[in-house]
Amino acid sequence: MKLSKLFGKTTKEISDEAESANHRLLIQGGFVDQLMAGVYTYLPLGYRVLKKVENIVREEMVLAGGQEILMPALQPAENWKQTGRWEMMDDLFRFTSYYTKKEFALGPTHEEVLSPLAKKFNSSYKDFPYAVFQIQTKFRDEKRAKSGILRGREFLMKDYYSFHSDEEDLDKYYEKMEKVYDKVFDRLGIGKETYYTYASGGTFAKYSHEYQTVTSAGEDMIYICDKCKIAINKEIITDLKNACPKCGNKDLREETAIEVGNIFKIKDKFTKPFDYRFISKDGKEKPVLMGCYGLGISRLMGAIVEIYNDDRGILWPKEVAPYDIHLISLNSDEEAEKVYKGLQEEGFDVLYDDRDISAGEKFSNADLIGIPIRLVASKKTLAEKSVEVKERGKEKTDIVKIDRVSKELCDLLDKK
Amino acid sequence: MKLSKLFGKTTKEISDEAESANHRLLIQGGFVDQLMAGVYTYLPLGYRVLKKVENIVREEMVLAGGQEILMPALQPAENWKQTGRWEMMDDLFRFTSYYTKKEFALGPTHEEVLSPLAKKFNSSYKDFPYAVFQIQTKFRDEKRAKSGILRGREFLMKDYYSFHSDEEDLDKYYEKMEKVYDKVFDRLGIGKETYYTYASGGTFAKYSHEYQTVTSAGEDMIYICDKCKIAINKEIITDLKNACPKCGNKDLREETAIEVGNIFKIKDKFTKPFDYRFISKDGKEKPVLMGCYGLGISRLMGAIVEIYNDDRGILWPKEVAPYDIHLISLNSDEEAEKVYKGLQEEGFDVLYDDRDISAGEKFSNADLIGIPIRLVASKKTLAEKSVEVKERGKEKTDIVKIDRVSKELCDLLDKK
Repeated sequence: MKLSKLFGKTTKEISDEAESANHRLLIQGGFVDQLMAGVYTYLPLGYRVLKKVENIVREEMVLAGGQEILMPALQPAENWKQTGRWEMMDDLFRFTSYYTKKEFALGPTHEEVLSPLAKKFNSSYKDFPYAVFQIQTKFRDEKRAKSGILRGREFLMKDYYSFHSDEEDLDKYYEKMEKVYDKVFDRLGIGKETYYTYASGGTFAKYSHEYQTVTSAGEDMIYICDKCKIAINKEIITDLKNACPKCGNKDLREETAIEVGNIFKIKDKFTKPFDYRFISKDGKEKPVLMGCYGLGISRLMGAIVEIYNDDRGILWPKEVAPYDIHLISLNSDEEAEKVYKGLQEEGFDVLYDDRDISAGEKFSNADLIGIPIRLVASKKTLAEKSVEVKERGKEKTDIVKIDRVSKELCDLLDKK
Repeated sequence: MKLSKLFGKTTKEISDEAESANHRLLIQGGFVDQLMAGVYTYLPLGYRVLKKVENIVREEMVLAGGQEILMPALQPAENWKQTGRWEMMDDLFRFTSYYTKKEFALGPTHEEVLSPLAKKFNSSYKDFPYAVFQIQTKFRDEKRAKSGILRGREFLMKDYYSFHSDEEDLDKYYEKMEKVYDKVFDRLGIGKETYYTYASGGTFAKYSHEYQTVTSAGEDMIYICDKCKIAINKEIITDLKNACPKCGNKDLREETAIEVGNIFKIKDKFTKPFDYRFISKDGKEKPVLMGCYGLGISRLMGAIVEIYNDDRGILWPKEVAPYDIHLISLNSDEEAEKVYKGLQEEGFDVLYDDRDISAGEKFSNADLIGIPIRLVASKKTLAEKSVEVKERGKEKTDIVKIDRVSKELCDLLDKK
């Protein structure tokens, strides 16, 4: 992609509201545009990142055995009244059809749709366990939408639901999903910063578990046990007598963090209101139990920026970077164009800064956008049939012969 | 995928409301589930089809030069008031935030978001032409949602927008997009049934153009000129004096059809209210002109079913079929499992009916689901190291040696 043609431009102007790094850098870098508080357009650069996060999550959910579906955002009020959440949730967007006078909710989650749906299909013990998931746009009437794409009124989520015939099976599945989640965070480059966190289980379980990514932009306070590499949400720390529930360690480290995912044994909380039961092996009717596993796709993108930034801009992990390579031409457009085309033919995704602006501006834009590798093609390097190679976040530059640059880039990007 | 594990089941029960073929067959085949009138869940089978349609459309839009973005569904009332559509559109979902008392619209289209957004970035003549698109969930408070996924309250759409510095450029681009659209319909297998149709241009152009697919489930009436292979929407046929606008032919054929796409020279209708102008080469401020190109992704899926069905079920064109092959095991589960795994290793997408039900039910389910090729592995065929191969919609069956079946399937599916 040529930067001269890219829709969305880097900007130095930024609103005072942009307190968090992801808000500021994603707007300045031309990744997103804020339509209103908590509501964003993903521009081409940002859309590419969002899709990469989404695809990593999808791959792991399919490997876990989940079948992908797509449930509607528009949901009938009756389903929400059946579970009691219509009256309970202040942040549920509610409205009425002009024509039919029917009341709708705009889905912030999908238990109210999925439970009665699953009931139609799977009611024999032979059907269990099974799991479905979706990656879908959700809506929440946030009291105070802030922190960029970390907390939005409209956001992209992955919600995965497992169904079980008994608690033992649910427990086993839940443990499997913990490992799946660890892998997702590792692949996204935030494994080290993301803690499996004990949180309140609400009315139906002792605990739920959150995945909390340590960042100053977070709104939650967690207490980390460095021995077990787990954390406890502040909301239950006194219940746990200020000790790690695994090892009893009281030497906990306090950090602010953002909840990027949560997993929940919701058991029969949402199957019961819809009377979803199954016929067991011995012919008896029994309640269906559920596990629920959420991940905020757009929030993950924001969390990655919160972790990977410096005073110049973003440093995208290569797995989610919008492009592999940021190529800069310095007064050498014809030859740089050849390098650009050559790299694309070799299978690299290249953002090519072909604009008629100063070298300084090109360099600072490259740092702001944060693509893992910067290549500079100038009269000087090209005279030696070379380009300059630099990794984002490192100061060292290398001059590499053009006929060997592909090999060098594959090594840097772990590509084949 | 094994049918015994697939989420969503074929069913014979169907509501009386299901008048149209797509509504009936997509529910009976386990492709979708109706949550309420005009609102559907896409089950795993249906989701695969939807994604295939989406990807074909995406590929062609990228080839046309469009840059993919993702705009929000949640939109501020002010933008809609600025264009006058807040008061004008009865089918706009409107609601108010509980916390902020801010009024929102739920986007049925995105000119109100894109015009002010594009204005932020591109205001020099050098920036033109350019185009962006999105594939996104849209909402419309339909007076009477019906005809299955042909006319929904929530639906998936591709909306593509081009921006121009003068009418000549817009006209040229518009002609290019006509060819792009023809290619999309050809790839989806409905090229022959889909007519470029003259329709009312509203207040700002003589005509707009719709793409109408001939089907009895359609709600529009069109008049086809078989000489020019174009059509005229009933709404303007008297304005055109009952004649083809291209050749003057008055021998037109009346058909019912469904609008699967439309293209529109909206010119400055939505740039003017946001005062989106550009600086021309000679330094003057001039209005930015727009073209707008819509395609209903979920509606296309429904239209395909309307065209490709018989009294037994659906006949998916191979480009959008949920799987390549429907494998049936008849009392030969162990050997059939080997065939299943072998085909997957060769790169085929296989739906494998491993269920413990009658042969008759398996055959009728295969016809209902409508995957292009049916394979039967039975004791009899396997004794001859063979499987039975049959194309959906043809009566002929072939007995093919297992070691040659891959080649045969590639030929039938036009795969390599």
